[in-house]
Amino acid sequence: MVDFTLLRINLDEQKVREEKVDEKTLRKFIGGRGLGVYLALKEIPKGADPLGPENKLYIMAGPVTGTAEGFEAGRTHVIAKSPLTGLIGESNMGGRFAPWMRFSGYEGIVLEGKSEEPVWISVINGEVKFHDAKPIWGRGTHYAEYYIRKTLKEGPKDGGVLAIGPAGENKVKLAALIHAGARAAGRTGMGAVMGSKNVKAIFVMGDRKPEIVDKERFEKGVKLLKDKIKTHPIRKALNSYGTAVLVNIINEIGALPTKNWTKGTFEKAEAISGEHMAEKYLVKTRGCWGCQIECGRLVKTYSPEWGVPEGSKGPEYETIFAIGSNLELGNLEAIIRLNHVLNDMGLDTIEFGNSVAVLMELYERLSKGEIPQDKAEELQKLLDGLRPIWGTPNPVLELAYKVARRDGIGEIMAEGAKALAEHFGCDCVAEARGMSLPAYDPRAIKAMALAYATSNRGGCHLRAYAVSFEVLGVPVKTDPLEVSVEKAKMVKEQQDFFASIDSMIVCKFNTFMTPMPEDYVDLLAGVTGWDVTAEEIMEIGERIYNVERLFNVREGDPGDYLSRRLIEEALPDGPAKGETAKKALEVMLPAYYEFRGWKDGVPTAETLKRLGLQEFEYIIQ
Amino acid sequence: MVDFTLLRINLDEQKVREEKVDEKTLRKFIGGRGLGVYLALKEIPKGADPLGPENKLYIMAGPVTGTAEGFEAGRTHVIAKSPLTGLIGESNMGGRFAPWMRFSGYEGIVLEGKSEEPVWISVINGEVKFHDAKPIWGRGTHYAEYYIRKTLKEGPKDGGVLAIGPAGENKVKLAALIHAGARAAGRTGMGAVMGSKNVKAIFVMGDRKPEIVDKERFEKGVKLLKDKIKTHPIRKALNSYGTAVLVNIINEIGALPTKNWTKGTFEKAEAISGEHMAEKYLVKTRGCWGCQIECGRLVKTYSPEWGVPEGSKGPEYETIFAIGSNLELGNLEAIIRLNHVLNDMGLDTIEFGNSVAVLMELYERLSKGEIPQDKAEELQKLLDGLRPIWGTPNPVLELAYKVARRDGIGEIMAEGAKALAEHFGCDCVAEARGMSLPAYDPRAIKAMALAYATSNRGGCHLRAYAVSFEVLGVPVKTDPLEVSVEKAKMVKEQQDFFASIDSMIVCKFNTFMTPMPEDYVDLLAGVTGWDVTAEEIMEIGERIYNVERLFNVREGDPGDYLSRRLIEEALPDGPAKGETAKKALEVMLPAYYEFRGWKDGVPTAETLKRLGLQEFEYIIQ
Repeated sequence: MVDFTLLRINLDEQKVREEKVDEKTLRKFIGGRGLGVYLALKEIPKGADPLGPENKLYIMAGPVTGTAEGFEAGRTHVIAKSPLTGLIGESNMGGRFAPWMRFSGYEGIVLEGKSEEPVWISVINGEVKFHDAKPIWGRGTHYAEYYIRKTLKEGPKDGGVLAIGPAGENKVKLAALIHAGARAAGRTGMGAVMGSKNVKAIFVMGDRKPEIVDKERFEKGVKLLKDKIKTHPIRKALNSYGTAVLVNIINEIGALPTKNWTKGTFEKAEAISGEHMAEKYLVKTRGCWGCQIECGRLVKTYSPEWGVPEGSKGPEYETIFAIGSNLELGNLEAIIRLNHVLNDMGLDTIEFGNSVAVLMELYERLSKGEIPQDKAEELQKLLDGLRPIWGTPNPVLELAYKVARRDGIGEIMAEGAKALAEHFGCDCVAEARGMSLPAYDPRAIKAMALAYATSNRGGCHLRAYAVSFEVLGVPVKTDPLEVSVEKAKMVKEQQDFFASIDSMIVCKFNTFMTPMPEDYVDLLAGVTGWDVTAEEIMEIGERIYNVERLFNVREGDPGDYLSRRLIEEALPDGPAKGETAKKALEVMLPAYYEFRGWKDGVPTAETLKRLGLQEFEYIIQ
Repeated sequence: MVDFTLLRINLDEQKVREEKVDEKTLRKFIGGRGLGVYLALKEIPKGADPLGPENKLYIMAGPVTGTAEGFEAGRTHVIAKSPLTGLIGESNMGGRFAPWMRFSGYEGIVLEGKSEEPVWISVINGEVKFHDAKPIWGRGTHYAEYYIRKTLKEGPKDGGVLAIGPAGENKVKLAALIHAGARAAGRTGMGAVMGSKNVKAIFVMGDRKPEIVDKERFEKGVKLLKDKIKTHPIRKALNSYGTAVLVNIINEIGALPTKNWTKGTFEKAEAISGEHMAEKYLVKTRGCWGCQIECGRLVKTYSPEWGVPEGSKGPEYETIFAIGSNLELGNLEAIIRLNHVLNDMGLDTIEFGNSVAVLMELYERLSKGEIPQDKAEELQKLLDGLRPIWGTPNPVLELAYKVARRDGIGEIMAEGAKALAEHFGCDCVAEARGMSLPAYDPRAIKAMALAYATSNRGGCHLRAYAVSFEVLGVPVKTDPLEVSVEKAKMVKEQQDFFASIDSMIVCKFNTFMTPMPEDYVDLLAGVTGWDVTAEEIMEIGERIYNVERLFNVREGDPGDYLSRRLIEEALPDGPAKGETAKKALEVMLPAYYEFRGWKDGVPTAETLKRLGLQEFEYIIQ
């Protein structure tokens, strides 16, 4: 039987407890995201304050984590009730934290309750220690990691740190968890949850080897992935240009959100592209644990104004959109530094960038006298002289420090882009379920409209990455401006597939090259010893997706929508000129519900029964 | 009898107590700085931790405070044991806090003990209230004042706020107390003392009228000051160009500290001068309470990068040196924004600028490979990508946020410029008694060497402002490059005079136009009813200066010195090329001791007896 051990940390009393997860539960949810959201739904009481001690933070590996090299099995999944949305919160992070967590003895760490004083926690080969975090409280994630490694005498420079910055401490709702200085579990405010528990950081290290039940089958599964990835052109593209390879691609189809989602193309796209980064700033590539894709960028800058440590991690595509095109900022060196500072402060670059974009639009309206006087006065007062003008990096830099500290305008921006827009009466935010959208304009990529609207954690590109078929042609090429029932099915299936992928846990980037559930059967069967099939992988994913939806329904789900800007305002430029996302939702959402077996966005009793989720029937009654 | 009431606030128990100061004590120390340092010496136990509950913070008015207009009687004096030097700490601040404090009912507020939770305190017409400061803990002084005024329903937009920023909360040793967003009790770390007591801010307001015992004589004294100031050319200069009128003047004599005190002239001086500020950035002038000089600058900027609220306070000369010439930064708009941010963070711009200057010199040495490897690695790690290069504003901006939060390199810079230099083994700081020097190079203005070395609170231009005679010709013009015994006497006398001026309290800028103790006899006699003479004013000042020295001797005074850079390194440029400060101290210090009645910097028993300070004889035994 596959061993899956959780370390439950009771912070109220600084007591720890080991818990073996039974195989029946595992087979229903695999691990990672699936097990995390299942436990969250069972254990976090209805109506719990996301920043209160009743919330729990699940930091999860999966059975595949840290088992083999050649594909990416180094990611970590984090789950809790989201302070940003009040719904299911979960976020997936690259790097090598989860492998080190497994090596330290645990497939998952669950933070429960709340520590009275700030602590950081070390877990080394099964030994758990609590350390005083006062010397690093208020500090950035970079100094925190430096301090922790300096303080620990026990080990080498190995092991992994997961930390929050000031943003998490101050319960900023866009606070991220940061690992290795730059790897982020960014979305849904997981950093604020850890901060609310007075936990600054977790360090994990050890030499336990993860179990593989059927080695032969496992190796067959690994070889399949390894070989397919090795020669694939997408691997080459990601390796050469990182995720920012998408800047030019998405700009060309008019789907690069620009100037707070008022345009779909950015004239300076080339200057912030992965190609430009590779040409001028790339020092070397860097993969997560065991990965041969190596989409990570280690970069340098030249400007004295925008310094970063040589070889520190460069910005991802999402960040380049969020603090680049969406702010009309075409200075890649500034973006590299800003990304570095945002990681240090522990902020989700996507939500932060969208918040700044809303602020820049507000500031433009303020300058034109279009904000009511009382609100205009408040805005001026809270800006305290800052001039958030399109394309201007310094105010963005200061806002990073201000949002993390909830200072001045940062107090309002700390609630997220939607809250900022609402506070100043500006219906100008691109969001779904209270979380602002990532870097693909759904008016130009229709299936993304459905993907965003139906994402349980709020506007997200990673629950279904419809870009893969709409733009990249994986597994088949569709027309991004076409609206169809078939696409609704593809979105649904991708959501289910990805839910299993996030539970094994492997990286979704593997699926660009190994896009079929079949590609993962030997891997999962090998590591667990289960006689699993492709159908079961899809069914498990569907079960997970329904559990998340149940969580939302229980907490008062606002439903599957996109905000007004995307529905009513047509794109004024590019290949998608004149397009909105209205029709996409009108056509695809009913079909999607049909495929899901949902009624008005809520799973039916039949669906729960089919998926073995009867224990949650009380939620839909 | 003159009424002088202290409000003693016991923070441990949130209890308050009024205390009338007896007239005998008042006559010996007047009020303000004099009474504050006397009480500090009596009440703060020897060896007390400056950041512990045993330290006390005295926030003082004087008998002249808030009594009449036409000269400056609006300043506040703050006294405590200094966390920066471990010696007497005291700082004098413009604006209108002390008048409002008197109007609220008190000549002084004494913070004692330590609050368990962060609080802010309101004092309105004698009524003291404690308020929860958690909603503004971690925030800047600007937002804190905004929040406090919004929270208080009781009053109009009058009243005064004295607040700390994150720097004070984090016990940064260069933390300032900030009033009205920009008025600073900056030096000696008084902000850290308030922070150590968990007090975020104090609000004072009321309508009590300060007492004037002999109105007729008082009015005579007021008229004398008013008339002399009104027509004086120095008033005109200060009104037209602010304190920054000094940039060009001091640069011309080669005494403008540049590039961390390695030069005495700055090629971009004109660009950061008061004249340039007046021409391009001045909105209007602004005086402290009742003052007709109006040296304060209300400014604007144009650049989107360096915004400030239109009409916010511009930088003083000291700040322009500290973050301008001393960093070779010639961008006045950047300096205006940096000043604004430093005030918001609650940092002393002088100590901060000197710390950054040391850091820039360290960084230059690092780039040349001149730092030992282990220290070089630590410095690189703590800089986390920042490139503090001469003349580059962005790293300075980020350092303001980092020092205030003790983050990364800020952890070391938070201890002051001297500590930073020592940590990295660089003998490159300009300091006396552990406090870094202000904007006059003592190699080019010899009497300033003595003034700095003998300043009880550490390197300071305001304990004796020898610049007045060495450069401005007040009351007589001396040759700044000449070393003489007569100058030692002038420094001693100015120190005594200023100690009384700081105790009445009036602004030293009055003394540019009314430079004789005689000018203040009617004023002080009128307000107090005392038959005071010019000689007594000088004797009181001398008594105060000796009390401060006794405080230092008791705490382990490092003595009257200037750091190596000023003694051994000759100026390479300007009219003072080839000069050091060595001879100035060698010649003038012994003479100064003679005039003071001190032996090796320590008051003799005879001196204490002459000044009526026998109660402190135990210190010198």
